[in-house]
Amino acid sequence: MLAANQSDTLYNQLYRTIVDQIRRGVLAAGVKLPPERELCLIYQVSRITVRQAMERLERDGFVSRRQGRGTFVQAGLVGPKTNRLYRLRDELASQGLKQDIRILNWGTVQADGLIAESLHLPDLAMVYRLMRLFLADEKPLTVETSYLPAAIFLRLPDLKQLTKNGLYATLEQLGYPPTRATERLRIVMADRETAAWLNRPQGCPCMHIARSTESNGQMVEYSTNIIPGDLFTYSVDLI
Amino acid sequence: MLAANQSDTLYNQLYRTIVDQIRRGVLAAGVKLPPERELCLIYQVSRITVRQAMERLERDGFVSRRQGRGTFVQAGLVGPKTNRLYRLRDELASQGLKQDIRILNWGTVQADGLIAESLHLPDLAMVYRLMRLFLADEKPLTVETSYLPAAIFLRLPDLKQLTKNGLYATLEQLGYPPTRATERLRIVMADRETAAWLNRPQGCPCMHIARSTESNGQMVEYSTNIIPGDLFTYSVDLI
Repeated sequence: MLAANQSDTLYNQLYRTIVDQIRRGVLAAGVKLPPERELCLIYQVSRITVRQAMERLERDGFVSRRQGRGTFVQAGLVGPKTNRLYRLRDELASQGLKQDIRILNWGTVQADGLIAESLHLPDLAMVYRLMRLFLADEKPLTVETSYLPAAIFLRLPDLKQLTKNGLYATLEQLGYPPTRATERLRIVMADRETAAWLNRPQGCPCMHIARSTESNGQMVEYSTNIIPGDLFTYSVDLI
Repeated sequence: MLAANQSDTLYNQLYRTIVDQIRRGVLAAGVKLPPERELCLIYQVSRITVRQAMERLERDGFVSRRQGRGTFVQAGLVGPKTNRLYRLRDELASQGLKQDIRILNWGTVQADGLIAESLHLPDLAMVYRLMRLFLADEKPLTVETSYLPAAIFLRLPDLKQLTKNGLYATLEQLGYPPTRATERLRIVMADRETAAWLNRPQGCPCMHIARSTESNGQMVEYSTNIIPGDLFTYSVDLI
């Protein structure tokens, strides 16, 4: 039970109690918090105190409220520190998350628009497209679509091998070690198909990360990741 | 008028025609495209061709569709290349955008939660809060909230002077040149107040950029920017 005192307000105590539980993993990412009236009973505080604490938790990104569904502990899947050509599978592993990769779709397609431009290919050139769903702790995290130029996809191993080793490790083996990349982040609304894979409602706001990867001056991959907004944070060091 | 030929599809021609118009500034950021049936008439193509072109324009981030309102040319306000401690006013200037800054709110508040933590201050310490609205080409772009520790705000010039010179230039003059920062990006829904300032509906998805800035090891600012998702792209170089 919390008690008011001179040096700290009740709602601040409640805020810090919950932050502490999130940090220690007592409240895990994705967990739904009890409703307001239950929190009042648990901590013996008023509704207004609970509301103030919740507002601050939301402002600081520790929880997110979903319309009509309740308040959930925010998963802070922190992206890379900049200047590092991070790999999603390493990021997830370093955060102790169990990961699964499901292949959704693969085959050759015509590169149009930004895809052709990013790979420095003529418009409508044939490229290999691989769509995969990444799950973290058994929950859908991102739909990743990779486009590879013909010179590379003709030499790819089978999909099982590729998925086991990872795309970047495979590129390394083929003699195309990724040396640098540019990433562009923007917000998109999930289309029907993507939303279904992510187990989210159509139109939910997602982070769209487009990456153009080169290997010693040659473009080797253009990829997009679509990640539900409440699962993702991206950190950048600026110097 | 477009005509089908062997080397290029009609919808691809339409896509490239519109991309070209956006790149040359004929179609300016924020402009509403004509409705589908008008595009059919203008370019003498079928509805399905227009639709395919629009889908690809949306996928590539050149336009965004707003529910029930139409299709708009996306403003690609590209953020910084990483590793650079960018200043919003310089970014806007380099893109040739006319900028205005309106002061929304200022005064001392108690730093709680992440604010106190980011500034390395005890919880509930007094800090100075300055809320400003940045407009680009007369349209609201971002609500920026800056929190400054007491040691700094006691020495601040008047608001008019601060706004004229910019916060970072002022910090430099005070002997606190910003030397590095960490930025965290995530998606939030605009609350009622922020939405009103941004002239957007409440709950619209926005990029939330939290920055902790230090000057030679001392924390000098914690700030947040809230920018409508369809106005913002963030670019990062990974090496």
